[in-house]
Amino acid sequence: MNQIEIGRGKRGRRAYSFDDIAVVPSRRTRDPEEVSVSWQIDAYHFDLPVIAAPMDSVMSPESAIAFGKLGGLPVLDLEGLWTRYDDPTFLLAEIASLDPSAATARLQQIYAEPIKPELITERLRAVREAGVTVAGALSPQRTQEFWQNVVDAGCDLFVIRGTTVSAEHVSSRAEPLNLKRFIYELDVPVIVGGVSSYTAALHLMRTGAAGVLVGFGGGAAHTTRLTLGIHAPMASAIADVAAARRDYMDESGGRYVHVIADGGMGRSGEIVKAIACGADAVMLGAALARATDAPGRGYHWGSEAHHALLPRGERVEVGALAPLEEILLGPGRMADGTTNLMGALRRAMATTGYSDLKEFQRVEVVVAPYQPG
Amino acid sequence: MNQIEIGRGKRGRRAYSFDDIAVVPSRRTRDPEEVSVSWQIDAYHFDLPVIAAPMDSVMSPESAIAFGKLGGLPVLDLEGLWTRYDDPTFLLAEIASLDPSAATARLQQIYAEPIKPELITERLRAVREAGVTVAGALSPQRTQEFWQNVVDAGCDLFVIRGTTVSAEHVSSRAEPLNLKRFIYELDVPVIVGGVSSYTAALHLMRTGAAGVLVGFGGGAAHTTRLTLGIHAPMASAIADVAAARRDYMDESGGRYVHVIADGGMGRSGEIVKAIACGADAVMLGAALARATDAPGRGYHWGSEAHHALLPRGERVEVGALAPLEEILLGPGRMADGTTNLMGALRRAMATTGYSDLKEFQRVEVVVAPYQPG
Amino acid sequence: MNQIEIGRGKRGRRAYSFDDIAVVPSRRTRDPEEVSVSWQIDAYHFDLPVIAAPMDSVMSPESAIAFGKLGGLPVLDLEGLWTRYDDPTFLLAEIASLDPSAATARLQQIYAEPIKPELITERLRAVREAGVTVAGALSPQRTQEFWQNVVDAGCDLFVIRGTTVSAEHVSSRAEPLNLKRFIYELDVPVIVGGVSSYTAALHLMRTGAAGVLVGFGGGAAHTTRLTLGIHAPMASAIADVAAARRDYMDESGGRYVHVIADGGMGRSGEIVKAIACGADAVMLGAALARATDAPGRGYHWGSEAHHALLPRGERVEVGALAPLEEILLGPGRMADGTTNLMGALRRAMATTGYSDLKEFQRVEVVVAPYQPG
Amino acid sequence: MNQIEIGRGKRGRRAYSFDDIAVVPSRRTRDPEEVSVSWQIDAYHFDLPVIAAPMDSVMSPESAIAFGKLGGLPVLDLEGLWTRYDDPTFLLAEIASLDPSAATARLQQIYAEPIKPELITERLRAVREAGVTVAGALSPQRTQEFWQNVVDAGCDLFVIRGTTVSAEHVSSRAEPLNLKRFIYELDVPVIVGGVSSYTAALHLMRTGAAGVLVGFGGGAAHTTRLTLGIHAPMASAIADVAAARRDYMDESGGRYVHVIADGGMGRSGEIVKAIACGADAVMLGAALARATDAPGRGYHWGSEAHHALLPRGERVEVGALAPLEEILLGPGRMADGTTNLMGALRRAMATTGYSDLKEFQRVEVVVAPYQPG
Repeated sequence: MNQIEIGRGKRGRRAYSFDDIAVVPSRRTRDPEEVSVSWQIDAYHFDLPVIAAPMDSVMSPESAIAFGKLGGLPVLDLEGLWTRYDDPTFLLAEIASLDPSAATARLQQIYAEPIKPELITERLRAVREAGVTVAGALSPQRTQEFWQNVVDAGCDLFVIRGTTVSAEHVSSRAEPLNLKRFIYELDVPVIVGGVSSYTAALHLMRTGAAGVLVGFGGGAAHTTRLTLGIHAPMASAIADVAAARRDYMDESGGRYVHVIADGGMGRSGEIVKAIACGADAVMLGAALARATDAPGRGYHWGSEAHHALLPRGERVEVGALAPLEEILLGPGRMADGTTNLMGALRRAMATTGYSDLKEFQRVEVVVAPYQPG
Repeated sequence: MNQIEIGRGKRGRRAYSFDDIAVVPSRRTRDPEEVSVSWQIDAYHFDLPVIAAPMDSVMSPESAIAFGKLGGLPVLDLEGLWTRYDDPTFLLAEIASLDPSAATARLQQIYAEPIKPELITERLRAVREAGVTVAGALSPQRTQEFWQNVVDAGCDLFVIRGTTVSAEHVSSRAEPLNLKRFIYELDVPVIVGGVSSYTAALHLMRTGAAGVLVGFGGGAAHTTRLTLGIHAPMASAIADVAAARRDYMDESGGRYVHVIADGGMGRSGEIVKAIACGADAVMLGAALARATDAPGRGYHWGSEAHHALLPRGERVEVGALAPLEEILLGPGRMADGTTNLMGALRRAMATTGYSDLKEFQRVEVVVAPYQPG
Repeated sequence: MNQIEIGRGKRGRRAYSFDDIAVVPSRRTRDPEEVSVSWQIDAYHFDLPVIAAPMDSVMSPESAIAFGKLGGLPVLDLEGLWTRYDDPTFLLAEIASLDPSAATARLQQIYAEPIKPELITERLRAVREAGVTVAGALSPQRTQEFWQNVVDAGCDLFVIRGTTVSAEHVSSRAEPLNLKRFIYELDVPVIVGGVSSYTAALHLMRTGAAGVLVGFGGGAAHTTRLTLGIHAPMASAIADVAAARRDYMDESGGRYVHVIADGGMGRSGEIVKAIACGADAVMLGAALARATDAPGRGYHWGSEAHHALLPRGERVEVGALAPLEEILLGPGRMADGTTNLMGALRRAMATTGYSDLKEFQRVEVVVAPYQPG
Repeated sequence: MNQIEIGRGKRGRRAYSFDDIAVVPSRRTRDPEEVSVSWQIDAYHFDLPVIAAPMDSVMSPESAIAFGKLGGLPVLDLEGLWTRYDDPTFLLAEIASLDPSAATARLQQIYAEPIKPELITERLRAVREAGVTVAGALSPQRTQEFWQNVVDAGCDLFVIRGTTVSAEHVSSRAEPLNLKRFIYELDVPVIVGGVSSYTAALHLMRTGAAGVLVGFGGGAAHTTRLTLGIHAPMASAIADVAAARRDYMDESGGRYVHVIADGGMGRSGEIVKAIACGADAVMLGAALARATDAPGRGYHWGSEAHHALLPRGERVEVGALAPLEEILLGPGRMADGTTNLMGALRRAMATTGYSDLKEFQRVEVVVAPYQPG
């Protein structure tokens, strides 16, 4: 690896964000109609390689059903408004109308309401009964408390998602979650993250996870670089974790762990780049929160925005641009990468001559940072 | 080639845009009056190394005649308004008056009108009768459908232009265009593109093309980097294709295929840089759409702006600055690289001591990215 | 070291600012509650690794006491308003209300008032009597004139602070301060700086200093790059001086000289990066001037802003955001790195698996410059 | 030299602008009062290493006298308003009041007035009679026509200045100026430029010039990068020409040709960097046009702004900030590098421990591009 000397006492790698790179055409082209963007993880097949992020601005039980029917994998946030309140509709309306200066404080209040285990059951059941493949998400801190409720309610995939999740969490106060044993004993496949380095990903893969989420607070609503000084540029992070997938497959005698890019993909071009760097699928937040039928009503926020002591994100206005179906499948009405996300992915693959996602991970990219103006 | 590690699982080259480079003076200077910018392709000689892009905002039959008389090569878009409508004048006026939010949708409607083969004949004849060397352009998708009309109407050069064109298009739905056979059987020289890599260019050259267009949606009206994640920085693309020209000349025992930069040259400085990187001529869109007598009436758009499902460009306002003649030949009235494009090219060549375009391809350049502010 | 050829006659290193780098997560995580941010220099222990900059917008005797009680080390500016005027309160109010165009000239007037030795004694005593560990700061130019007053008044640590301080000052007009003898003869530990290179730091360490300040006018209120062309990017400067600390410890048989980052840390993320590059503690100016109870009343300026002949800084508006306690210890009310600075530092350390500051100096960083917009 | 591959067919060096670099402190400091900024070229001694650019916005006969008395070398533009009009005062007032959209066209008209040889004589005599060392400047194109008038009028130094001047100008229309013979036959020392590369500078030095101007349209009023695509980043250009000075001194057995940076030094920090890269003196335009007593009345323009066919510059508003004396010698009233230029240079030299300009050419610099915001 390309180590740079920052000063005599410190070295570091150059890391690349999506903005730093671009896909380049090659010598072959193909008809967009002959491109497949389907994706399979464990026993589950999806027409689209898209997971909806477990965030209250993106997923409600209702929008989860709609999203699943369009071909993606919805993930319910089991620590969000829908498991804290019987009917959070009026709160979603209130959040969308908050003055920016008051938003953080009010979010902290609203999310102070305790989680109700019976609502976990109810929300998951509602989506399952609609015939949609569904996943539920908990944070690593809450997994031990609520996982039984999740399993009892029944879900197809289980997601453990934090800003960063490691296979080795050190705590003297409580017995930390033993991921390896937990995953071994659980019947449903587990997707876990965020993770952003080769070594951390390899350790997570060894716990038996079916997929890992790559990212660290790179989304539109995060401010982790400003507040924590931590930043994992996505192009490099995905490429590192994809290498861990390859090495782990060799080490394990053939287990393929899915690499799911999570964060920083607000436009279709970034979804293309994520897969070009090695992702199998993408988890989208802001890109889906822009739907007119999204629960966020034109706004988007993550759980770090309502942290009681150290908020590391903000409620951001993303607009309500088009119905979810148009955002995913078109027809596009804007030329800015916000609608027909999957049409753009197909077109990018066709233009460079690829016919499926796995092959497209090998497409040529260049380093070409944006120049202002 | 200079491969950079993006992450453990992915490498890519550093690629350069026009903004990243600049021409530098050398030890010799010359009188601008003694500089030639003339260009010859096949049997056709041009006083100026400029091709007008086949776009409705740039070329109408009338402006094509004017452009040809000034010394350049006009290219008619045979899939544009002039082959869909008997008299599209009122539509051009309407497009220029559209509200930005409604422009994409209305363009999609206007261009849904079918192409009329008899209008292809009529438009080409009108320009030929004016005594001007003329080219007609079709997209690769439409070439098989309409090429016979083009040949029957008679044109001097034939242009096949898409955002990316390859010698190996894969399709199971229809017999793809066999470029090599097509070009072999056609009597008129063919210019084909866009292409942006060494290998793809070499393959295109082997089809027998007289010239290749270098570019991939880099123009003022494109948003392909945002929507598709695809970007081919022009300085690197031209330098790569120029190397393919050299290697193909060797391989073919002396066939010289012209390298024509297409896109991203909105100012005279960028025309200079395109030739410095190895281009023989330039195809201009926005730079010519700024003419007061251009059909776009101060606006500019490409065919990707009215794609029915996935628009990848926008109608942009470029202003109506000066008559076409002033834009090409001066005298300059502005100091921003928008007028007297050819005077600027001559001056740049004289200042660095070169007397013709072919020599000027060897001028020294530096990498010196713009700094903001 | 990585020398770059600027031109045939000049070479230089690439140097990195905080904006150029970021901390990256590793394979381990930890509970934030189990992280220690305590710091010890000489016999003095501090709960927080934070020194308040000796600037009139940051420290008054009153705010020094408050800051000390919160766990940091306050430093009184012994050449500021509080040693020039009996009661400068009304002047602080006036400075906060000055029109920007008149600010520099009025600051020059206000600071023309002579320093009164008896006020040095009085200010230091006031803080000591409150039971707070306190330091007093003089510039190198004034140290010989006033150090005796400081020692007589009694202070725990002595700070000699200029934009740049060297162990070898050349002057034919006056006997320059012999730092080595001065420190040797003084009873209290001395912190001295700014310094920004390995060699200069090593020389300062050999004078017997307990700590060195790393920086050169990198703060929010400085304009030294514009006016002097001088700039010492902080990430590289800290990493260089940290290497000098290591080498000097070896050379001296075990003396550990503290490396204190001084300047350019307006947000919690930059404090994290400073320590990641090797700092033991940070000296904060603008970040603390944002307190509602800071003397600057929402404004911030340094001594270079009122230089009589060559002002090299400006009075800048930083806003009055939250009480000092919230700025240091939270709870955070904003997600932009301005409040709960220490909570953010703990969180960053926990997220990357570290439990104390000395270990955290080894955290992995990447080079990932911000891209505009 | 560090050659970068732009594409397979083209390579280029990385070149650096002033914004890309910064001076860094070293281990020694010095009193500013003990620093000398004096400069000597041929028999002429100057207290300040500053040449006023021959531009109508900077130099009138009156301001030339004032500038000379302050210690610098004024250069009269012998092709400007003062040699075209008996009294151009009213025209200077008109230019300052022109609407931006009309400025270029009106400048073209005003400068269409022929040059009057008798005014050349009169203007030079006026300045000489005031006891000031004075230089007159002609463009290479006009030198043969008017040099005799200049010599007859008497001037101390002769300046030949164009955007780029080479020792080998090729022209079939007229006998080009043979610089070597011209300089040999002339009695007064000649300063000639701009030049921006090692080889071109070496050739110019061999003509016998006493000094060379380094630059190519890098000033505040130029748009050569936009219009011509030509750009010679100043830090690299100066360092290259400084190397030519060294090599030519060796080759010639000791002739020292002065390297004068010309362009892009609008702030004192850039003057510092120019000398740090190897310049012996600086030629200032915009920085001096900001004087309240400058002829430009807050505006600044160069001869390229009124080129009849291809204007490559604009009249820019620079403001009228302070009297010329304050701009050069202070006291500074602003902290932005626009006033007390020489005080800032002295301070930068003192802070890094240098006592004269020749030594300061060896100061350490770093590459540290500005980051936005």
